[in-house]
Amino acid sequence: MTNDPAVAALMKQEIDEQPEVWRRLLASDQFDAAAQRIAAQRPRMVLLAARGTSDHAALYAKYLVEVILRLPAGLASPSTISAYGAEPDLRDVLVFGISQSGGSPDLIRYLQVARAQGALTIAVTNNEGSQLAQEAEVHLDVMAGPERAVAATKTYTAELLALYLLLDKIRGGSANAEPLPELGDGVLGQEPHIVEQAQRYRFAQRLVTTARGYSYPTAREAALKLMETSYLSAQAFSGADLMHGPLAVIDTQVPVLAVVADGPGGNAMGPVLERLIDVGADVFTVGTQAAVSKSTSGLVLPANVPEEISPILEILPFQQLAMHLAVARGGNPDAPRGLRKVTETL
Amino acid sequence: MTNDPAVAALMKQEIDEQPEVWRRLLASDQFDAAAQRIAAQRPRMVLLAARGTSDHAALYAKYLVEVILRLPAGLASPSTISAYGAEPDLRDVLVFGISQSGGSPDLIRYLQVARAQGALTIAVTNNEGSQLAQEAEVHLDVMAGPERAVAATKTYTAELLALYLLLDKIRGGSANAEPLPELGDGVLGQEPHIVEQAQRYRFAQRLVTTARGYSYPTAREAALKLMETSYLSAQAFSGADLMHGPLAVIDTQVPVLAVVADGPGGNAMGPVLERLIDVGADVFTVGTQAAVSKSTSGLVLPANVPEEISPILEILPFQQLAMHLAVARGGNPDAPRGLRKVTETL
Repeated sequence: MTNDPAVAALMKQEIDEQPEVWRRLLASDQFDAAAQRIAAQRPRMVLLAARGTSDHAALYAKYLVEVILRLPAGLASPSTISAYGAEPDLRDVLVFGISQSGGSPDLIRYLQVARAQGALTIAVTNNEGSQLAQEAEVHLDVMAGPERAVAATKTYTAELLALYLLLDKIRGGSANAEPLPELGDGVLGQEPHIVEQAQRYRFAQRLVTTARGYSYPTAREAALKLMETSYLSAQAFSGADLMHGPLAVIDTQVPVLAVVADGPGGNAMGPVLERLIDVGADVFTVGTQAAVSKSTSGLVLPANVPEEISPILEILPFQQLAMHLAVARGGNPDAPRGLRKVTETL
Repeated sequence: MTNDPAVAALMKQEIDEQPEVWRRLLASDQFDAAAQRIAAQRPRMVLLAARGTSDHAALYAKYLVEVILRLPAGLASPSTISAYGAEPDLRDVLVFGISQSGGSPDLIRYLQVARAQGALTIAVTNNEGSQLAQEAEVHLDVMAGPERAVAATKTYTAELLALYLLLDKIRGGSANAEPLPELGDGVLGQEPHIVEQAQRYRFAQRLVTTARGYSYPTAREAALKLMETSYLSAQAFSGADLMHGPLAVIDTQVPVLAVVADGPGGNAMGPVLERLIDVGADVFTVGTQAAVSKSTSGLVLPANVPEEISPILEILPFQQLAMHLAVARGGNPDAPRGLRKVTETL
């Protein structure tokens, strides 16, 4: 960091707070009633509406819904309702609105119309007094405490965990998430490696992030965080899509950040990593020991974590990287240019 | 272009062929039977599976389904089935598999499982002998003729138009698309302006594309085309998401390409354009006269085109831009580095 203790102070504090936020969520009893309400409705499909960082939490939940609840799921395009006045038939549909502030007008409008069209609506927010929370039939509180940094970190993993705990409860429940706070402390403790890694990208103009399956939302969120704080162009691709055209962008000047979890999504990254190494890419991998050892550099995550909760840990080093890279480049991620804390899209 | 007539010859030919491909589709009688088959099934929701360029055609169809058919729709994540073995309940669900070649193994697997899980499956391909076409209950032929260029152009707009003609037929049918071939010839005739515009981006490292609603897939496809052929980092954002964080990336060194159609999606871009101009961005707009006149430069599209078919025209100048920029930068878009014509993801 710099000698000025005020630079990145808010972002650092909120990154470090995350295991504590998870402990609060793990101790919360709000998930039982919500799960019962949803199960009683027997939804046939799920739609998820969100923007920005919360959209990556929605994407994570989409995988969970499809794999563990065996229901088709899709990310909503709020503009079909807010701009085009579409009135889809949403009986038997479960609709999530996910937003840290709960104040985004297009999501509020989307949930209002969804409810009127027959959907069961759930708001996932960090503010139970927000309009989004009020409009929905069910509210999940992500319990992250006030977010003061401009770049969302703790509210992202709190959204992931709240969604996981709800969907896991609907499935019947497990103890999968219990070890997360302790594991999170361990991952955060590897910060010195990330400080070094940030120096490697000091002069990079653009980079690419990639993953598959449950970890794909991590690649998306890592790219957004790097863009918001360090102003470099960071593009996320599913490993499958990367092979379809964007691979042309990758050369020795475009570093790749890969996420390779321990499971089917991580396994599907095998051929992608090989191809990247073939074309001479500089690859930093967060994930399994095996994948890190094939890469230019990397950070090993704890072993034996079920892939379905791995995204909650995977993003931590990328949050640290975004912060340290911003500082290394002379910026202050607590005061990025051009951004306001509340974004209103109509 | 260059003095070498072989450079970009395939891409140029296929770009120019598009109005002819559309005439073939408009004269085809394949849409009646497919529309009747789907209407008889009374689907409650729609899922669309595709990769790369075809994924942008899927996104366009998602808006059409939600707005004109009033059904919830989502883009499928094939890896939930191909990597995680998910077996979602897909009764009452209409599943599209969209692929130029019809040979992508993960899409074939997705359609097989979807059909076994109760979905009505439709393949949209440029090859009726392909396995994807064979596995689906209904096949739509996009009739684009053999695609020889590496960067897909004519098959993209052929997919858009085939999907439009099918979904419009299910709605009851209209003559909206009839004028497209003639309008397309007019838009393609503005190529000299695009040759000049390409010079403006000769030394750009990265750029951003943006749009909302029906035109958002155009922004996505324009970004992919520029990446594939010119190796610059091109990122697409919905105008709404752009205001949520990525705006920090935009400065006077990062040109913005905006699409502003004549309709609700285009109208929703008004505040986005204003904000971009506020932060001093260099904005090239393809769309309405009003939006172009507010931008740094632009290309005006024909007036009075229903917004729901505007994407079929909007992409044409971006295809030309990708081609001319690649050539201006000393490349040959018919032979981009790192790409193969058929991409197999498992």
